[in-house]
Amino acid sequence: MIHAFTPFYPSEALAKAGIHSPINFLMKLWQKSYTVDQQIEAFTVGQDRELDRYLAPYDILGSLAHIRMLEKIGLLNAEEQGKLSSKLKELYQKANSGNLEIEQGVEDIHSQIELLLTRELGDAGKKIHAGRSRNDQVLVGLRLYFRAELQEIAALTERLFITLIQLAGKHRHVLLPGYTHFQAAMPSSFGLWFSAFAESLVDDLRLLQSVYHNINQNPLGSAAGYGTSFPLDRTMTTRLLGFRDLNYNVVHAQMGRGKSELFLSYALAALAHTLGKLAADVVLYVSQNFSFLSFPDELTTGSSIMPHKKNPDVFELIRARCNLLQSLPVQVSQLTTSLPSGYHRDFQLLKESIFPAIQHLKDCLGILTYALPQAKVNSSILEDERYQYLFSVEVVNELVLKGIPFREAYQKVGKQIEEGQFEPPQELRHSHEGSLGNLCLEEIERKMEEVLKGFPFEEVEKAVEELLEG
Amino acid sequence: MIHAFTPFYPSEALAKAGIHSPINFLMKLWQKSYTVDQQIEAFTVGQDRELDRYLAPYDILGSLAHIRMLEKIGLLNAEEQGKLSSKLKELYQKANSGNLEIEQGVEDIHSQIELLLTRELGDAGKKIHAGRSRNDQVLVGLRLYFRAELQEIAALTERLFITLIQLAGKHRHVLLPGYTHFQAAMPSSFGLWFSAFAESLVDDLRLLQSVYHNINQNPLGSAAGYGTSFPLDRTMTTRLLGFRDLNYNVVHAQMGRGKSELFLSYALAALAHTLGKLAADVVLYVSQNFSFLSFPDELTTGSSIMPHKKNPDVFELIRARCNLLQSLPVQVSQLTTSLPSGYHRDFQLLKESIFPAIQHLKDCLGILTYALPQAKVNSSILEDERYQYLFSVEVVNELVLKGIPFREAYQKVGKQIEEGQFEPPQELRHSHEGSLGNLCLEEIERKMEEVLKGFPFEEVEKAVEELLEG
Amino acid sequence: MIHAFTPFYPSEALAKAGIHSPINFLMKLWQKSYTVDQQIEAFTVGQDRELDRYLAPYDILGSLAHIRMLEKIGLLNAEEQGKLSSKLKELYQKANSGNLEIEQGVEDIHSQIELLLTRELGDAGKKIHAGRSRNDQVLVGLRLYFRAELQEIAALTERLFITLIQLAGKHRHVLLPGYTHFQAAMPSSFGLWFSAFAESLVDDLRLLQSVYHNINQNPLGSAAGYGTSFPLDRTMTTRLLGFRDLNYNVVHAQMGRGKSELFLSYALAALAHTLGKLAADVVLYVSQNFSFLSFPDELTTGSSIMPHKKNPDVFELIRARCNLLQSLPVQVSQLTTSLPSGYHRDFQLLKESIFPAIQHLKDCLGILTYALPQAKVNSSILEDERYQYLFSVEVVNELVLKGIPFREAYQKVGKQIEEGQFEPPQELRHSHEGSLGNLCLEEIERKMEEVLKGFPFEEVEKAVEELLEG
Amino acid sequence: MIHAFTPFYPSEALAKAGIHSPINFLMKLWQKSYTVDQQIEAFTVGQDRELDRYLAPYDILGSLAHIRMLEKIGLLNAEEQGKLSSKLKELYQKANSGNLEIEQGVEDIHSQIELLLTRELGDAGKKIHAGRSRNDQVLVGLRLYFRAELQEIAALTERLFITLIQLAGKHRHVLLPGYTHFQAAMPSSFGLWFSAFAESLVDDLRLLQSVYHNINQNPLGSAAGYGTSFPLDRTMTTRLLGFRDLNYNVVHAQMGRGKSELFLSYALAALAHTLGKLAADVVLYVSQNFSFLSFPDELTTGSSIMPHKKNPDVFELIRARCNLLQSLPVQVSQLTTSLPSGYHRDFQLLKESIFPAIQHLKDCLGILTYALPQAKVNSSILEDERYQYLFSVEVVNELVLKGIPFREAYQKVGKQIEEGQFEPPQELRHSHEGSLGNLCLEEIERKMEEVLKGFPFEEVEKAVEELLEG
Repeated sequence: MIHAFTPFYPSEALAKAGIHSPINFLMKLWQKSYTVDQQIEAFTVGQDRELDRYLAPYDILGSLAHIRMLEKIGLLNAEEQGKLSSKLKELYQKANSGNLEIEQGVEDIHSQIELLLTRELGDAGKKIHAGRSRNDQVLVGLRLYFRAELQEIAALTERLFITLIQLAGKHRHVLLPGYTHFQAAMPSSFGLWFSAFAESLVDDLRLLQSVYHNINQNPLGSAAGYGTSFPLDRTMTTRLLGFRDLNYNVVHAQMGRGKSELFLSYALAALAHTLGKLAADVVLYVSQNFSFLSFPDELTTGSSIMPHKKNPDVFELIRARCNLLQSLPVQVSQLTTSLPSGYHRDFQLLKESIFPAIQHLKDCLGILTYALPQAKVNSSILEDERYQYLFSVEVVNELVLKGIPFREAYQKVGKQIEEGQFEPPQELRHSHEGSLGNLCLEEIERKMEEVLKGFPFEEVEKAVEELLEG
Repeated sequence: MIHAFTPFYPSEALAKAGIHSPINFLMKLWQKSYTVDQQIEAFTVGQDRELDRYLAPYDILGSLAHIRMLEKIGLLNAEEQGKLSSKLKELYQKANSGNLEIEQGVEDIHSQIELLLTRELGDAGKKIHAGRSRNDQVLVGLRLYFRAELQEIAALTERLFITLIQLAGKHRHVLLPGYTHFQAAMPSSFGLWFSAFAESLVDDLRLLQSVYHNINQNPLGSAAGYGTSFPLDRTMTTRLLGFRDLNYNVVHAQMGRGKSELFLSYALAALAHTLGKLAADVVLYVSQNFSFLSFPDELTTGSSIMPHKKNPDVFELIRARCNLLQSLPVQVSQLTTSLPSGYHRDFQLLKESIFPAIQHLKDCLGILTYALPQAKVNSSILEDERYQYLFSVEVVNELVLKGIPFREAYQKVGKQIEEGQFEPPQELRHSHEGSLGNLCLEEIERKMEEVLKGFPFEEVEKAVEELLEG
Repeated sequence: MIHAFTPFYPSEALAKAGIHSPINFLMKLWQKSYTVDQQIEAFTVGQDRELDRYLAPYDILGSLAHIRMLEKIGLLNAEEQGKLSSKLKELYQKANSGNLEIEQGVEDIHSQIELLLTRELGDAGKKIHAGRSRNDQVLVGLRLYFRAELQEIAALTERLFITLIQLAGKHRHVLLPGYTHFQAAMPSSFGLWFSAFAESLVDDLRLLQSVYHNINQNPLGSAAGYGTSFPLDRTMTTRLLGFRDLNYNVVHAQMGRGKSELFLSYALAALAHTLGKLAADVVLYVSQNFSFLSFPDELTTGSSIMPHKKNPDVFELIRARCNLLQSLPVQVSQLTTSLPSGYHRDFQLLKESIFPAIQHLKDCLGILTYALPQAKVNSSILEDERYQYLFSVEVVNELVLKGIPFREAYQKVGKQIEEGQFEPPQELRHSHEGSLGNLCLEEIERKMEEVLKGFPFEEVEKAVEELLEG
Repeated sequence: MIHAFTPFYPSEALAKAGIHSPINFLMKLWQKSYTVDQQIEAFTVGQDRELDRYLAPYDILGSLAHIRMLEKIGLLNAEEQGKLSSKLKELYQKANSGNLEIEQGVEDIHSQIELLLTRELGDAGKKIHAGRSRNDQVLVGLRLYFRAELQEIAALTERLFITLIQLAGKHRHVLLPGYTHFQAAMPSSFGLWFSAFAESLVDDLRLLQSVYHNINQNPLGSAAGYGTSFPLDRTMTTRLLGFRDLNYNVVHAQMGRGKSELFLSYALAALAHTLGKLAADVVLYVSQNFSFLSFPDELTTGSSIMPHKKNPDVFELIRARCNLLQSLPVQVSQLTTSLPSGYHRDFQLLKESIFPAIQHLKDCLGILTYALPQAKVNSSILEDERYQYLFSVEVVNELVLKGIPFREAYQKVGKQIEEGQFEPPQELRHSHEGSLGNLCLEEIERKMEEVLKGFPFEEVEKAVEELLEG
């Protein structure tokens, strides 16, 4: 279950305390400091209490693996591990259904879970921290969270891919003008148009898969970024959590904070680039100056003063959202640029950029998959005489294939156009791979399947299941 | 009063309806469409219900000016205008104290206010829309909101400036190493260091002022971006709202959506650049490898496993926030790039980037003003022998001033250093303008005053007051 | 005179030495190091030798002021100053006409000038460096260069402004559809369209002016960023160079490296935002789907295979260039983010981003000023029936002004549309300020004049002239 | 062989014609138009003449495959194909050794090659264009060029990886402080530090590999983006050029312009992120405040006025360059944002951003590989008493392992520290995977090998070789 972000600003704390202007407040601060702690705390906690809810179930998974390992190396006994396990599994269910609340005064989800364990299990609860630090605890939680979201994104992308392939098949014979320089240039088709974006998604998913593999490595055991003198068995937690491999070097593991988000930002931005272009095309195509597509009223909005308007707000917002997602890599790199190795509190703000971006991209994928099949395709676009010259190249090529030299054919057709004698051909004979007469949808589907096979979703799910049951 | 952002995602709507996975949800959507409206609506409304609360009082101010003008040109009679005015003033008080709620099912604050007026005043409520469209209503609300925030930011900046000047004066004699290439290079002082940032704020505020002037122009009357056939008196609303001038051209006024935000992003990012560098210096200076500054425990955080740690989280988060604010211009331009003239729904998302950024910058200004005076300055930094060669240039210069050619002086001092005979001078004689012996704090204050005089805050406040009383 | 950039990469050095693959080269490096110096030098020098040509005349101006001041404070005698002055003036003429070459083996323009002075004047040439460091020498050269370029940009902007106002006047009666959501919405006009961009330029220039004022401050005398013990008279060099004020604090002056470029990037990006939108509109308007504008063949390009194509390459490239300029602020902030105060070699790369950007923006301004007057405006756009409903709001408003309630009027017109009875009005009666019937071109020109008056170009030019003659 | 970029601006053309101010020039333009063509041409050609040199050999490879296919489908006879082939192979040698000049007046490399073919072979030269357009010709040239550069980058990255692993092994026992929050926190080692960056390169290369696969697909045959009616055999050209697969859909293939560059920008920025952090650490570590590392004089620069300075310019410039490369994704997306599908001239400017970025990254990889082995590692860092508490956690952990509860152990050590009785342990017992006692260099090397195996370099090289010989 996904929760709303409720960003929290120091100014809020003030407002809640009945102090309406930060300026007045600060003036008071010069004299007294009775609200100091609140202000500093509000500033440093930031949105963590809200954003951490996304992390809750994954933090618990990390702990489940950690305590199994602690038992193995003798830092927990079997009984302690058993009690901790069953309490953690209970909390996992709660977290997963969105019912794990962070109590007032508790800084973040990690502290909350610790508090609940200690409250109920006493010393055993405290022992859970042996051999780890908050740094690697957060690192592993983030990796598991990102891994799960990437899987969801892959599933939503596959769904949109299927939709686009189906629409390409359905409208394969409907022609529309192809543009270059925004000038009508050559005949294209809805078959080509829909499946172009499908094939683009294959490349996006291939990139996403490399990001998945990078993220699907175990940072647990890196402690504060410099390891620990406890004889941890990191290979064991790697297996338990279904990670593909270890982030061996502990300094490298810690540097993953910021770098994982950077990789993730690429995966999100690449997909957004495809979706944004698709949305940009749709906004154009529904304009009166094109009228290639239309959508039912439920998917458009009207104007209070202009009754003839049917505005493509949904697609404008997808375009906008996807454009905004293009700035994600630079947001991440601005936050991390020139910082030397080692943990910095700065990393906290990465969550504010990345977590909503993930949800936004998922929303765009979902809405497009829902909206596109409702498009009404205009099947008589090319009847408009403004598009008649789209076929000039076809005619030239036909003559060339009949043995007339290109230059002569070109001049002949040019003259026909000038004299108003030009007649568009009855039939298009595009036959090569990927052309409008030969869309190669099966080949594109084959490429998608090959990429999908590269994701280890089953192994990962099995490992998580076993951890929760084991 | 400032409210928390509570972003709202379609996925939330699903979650609230007990549907936990967007994937499952979308699968269902393929079969039935009973939740369709909610999904589309949730996606298009986005965070508007939350963000619009910031706009509420300013939207009302715009309406107050608009109806006074409508009365003048005969589209409202005096009675109608009177009733509308007094209801709007009542709502203004509510909005200003944070008590104007957007009811369930109402899309945004503009609709909410309209609803309240119509509910109470019937037809008179509806007439308020003559001669304007939602587009220019939002435009004018945004301008008034940005104008007010820029004033607050200017005030907070002035306060930080005063603090820095005071600290510079207080610590003017405490030396610290000045670095070039991150190598200790020449003697500097806390007087220089603190007042350097003060003088930087003057430049930042000069830029901000030009942004203020650009924003302080009246877009009201541009309607949907193409004006209206009603004989509006835009000069009148300009005066009533305290705007400095009109955005004459209605297409230009509409293009201000996106452009105002871009200007604003420059003003915020420029200030953030100064604050971020200050924070970056502080994080360095409190490290054991520098120990130039320290802060009381309330302003630092410890480590649960390393008791010797006192971490400068507050300053790391200021640095991070300010770094993130550097990406604001590109966020805004990504959203607006390549869009042709005229309104696009894309602009809605500008609020998500800009509104929190304003609050964040204010928080950073406030926290720094609060925290910096609590810094304990290390007054014996230069006693550390690693800094002894900082004074080599001084000694060379002294010899030059005594008539010894530079090359000879340089060699002489070089030899002293080599032979371990080098003695740092007892006294520094930096006397030129802006050097450590002559900080010119008064001149810097004079520059700040000149900039501050260029803001028309009094006129603006007077106009708003009169509008609310008139 | 402006010179071509000839970026220089280490790989070039290798290539010139006949080593074609950097990989092979590096393998050799493992064994021998005979080309080491070249590689390191090539890497650190980068493009400086090329880019510094832009700085040459400004570096000389800075030196001219510096030596006059050195004479005053007794570090140069009158004879030395006289000789240096006349040699520097000679070099200025050379630099200004593009004939000041950087000799082989000389690192940058500053070294080259120094070399020429010393070669000819011996010891007097060496004395020019007393009381300054390379850091403030570069700082002042950059400021003077930026100041001159901002003046050129202001002049080019004024020229484009005049062009747009003239075109608006000329085509004030030609209507075109105004779009919202990319949907034809309301009548607009070429008068509105052209002058909208003119008024936007006023705001851009207002921002640019604040940047000009920030840059027009004297950093000379800040030495390596920590001042000097020589009794410099910085007020004197401020006056001689025509600066408006001093950067008093020497640490602040040094922090101007990076910050000046950031301010400048805002000024360039803001103008580019306006030009980019204008170009985006043009690319759309010349498409067959709009046909609002056309350009003579010399301004378009054809296709080798499609004779019907007339592509708006010039405007596409302006759009692209202006979009790219939007990333300038983030380029600058990426380079400077998280760097503590003090000089860093990193700043060298700022020139690579900023210098070409200045030239590119000037080119865009120049090309638009040249191309737009050649546009052929389609005067019968609205005759196309797809635009007939643009006038529905007009008709509704007319009825309202005649006393019919809005709701009733709206329904009446809606019915006419449905029944095919709708008749667009003969005449548009937009009369309010900035509407298509009342463009307020004079008021917009008045605003531009007010902004232009705020630039101190005359004083600056006079100071520079006197310095070169004095 | 790599050539220098010589950007070319319209202003240059003017300058060369003796017109020194663009403003004056433009004034003249208002009256006469004799230089018009030059100005427009200069603006639209831009830097293409220079940048296209990078493409020359790859453009020729594309042509070699294209004509073999044209022969197969009967559009060229065997003799024609033979003549074209041998001339093209001759030009390939020339291009590859940097001797293929673009003649004065020829727009780009594609035109130049065509011109040379036609000059020598007459009609056969012209026939080479059947079945392709400039769009897919450029697309395939870019893909082949990017593919080759990615291979070079992979090789340079592997080399740096090996260097880092070797350095980690060599200095595995030298300790340095590990920092969190920029505060000395725990013991780390040069073994950990060097190999952390090595392991990071593995992830970067995994991402780069997915980009390689995306780019290694054949767009040839997509013509202007809408295919052609000629019966092309695209599978054949795919095989001849060693591509892994086709970009089937022709619209998708064309959309690759911009998208390939975006993918590439991710690969470059990810690597730059790692290198930049490494350089940032080095700049810090050579500072007097750290003194962890030093470099021989040849790798540092001095100061003309401060003889004690040894500045790490090389590493500052690497940091700066890598920071700047972080803005590459946003440069690419700014250029392509909101553009509908189909070719736009805007894409031309992508080359200006991407081509130099590739060279810059290669330079950074090369310089680091050359410089790092020359670092002198300080082997007595931790003797400085400021680092004594780094070991407090070790001692606590030791006690815990002996059975003392954590809380008690923590208090005991805390008391020792307070009372000045704390004694750092003689030996560090970090034994878990990736810790300083167990670096797992072999495992990291194994990961690198696995990634390297995923590149199809051999197949690709073999195909290119066969094409050149066949």
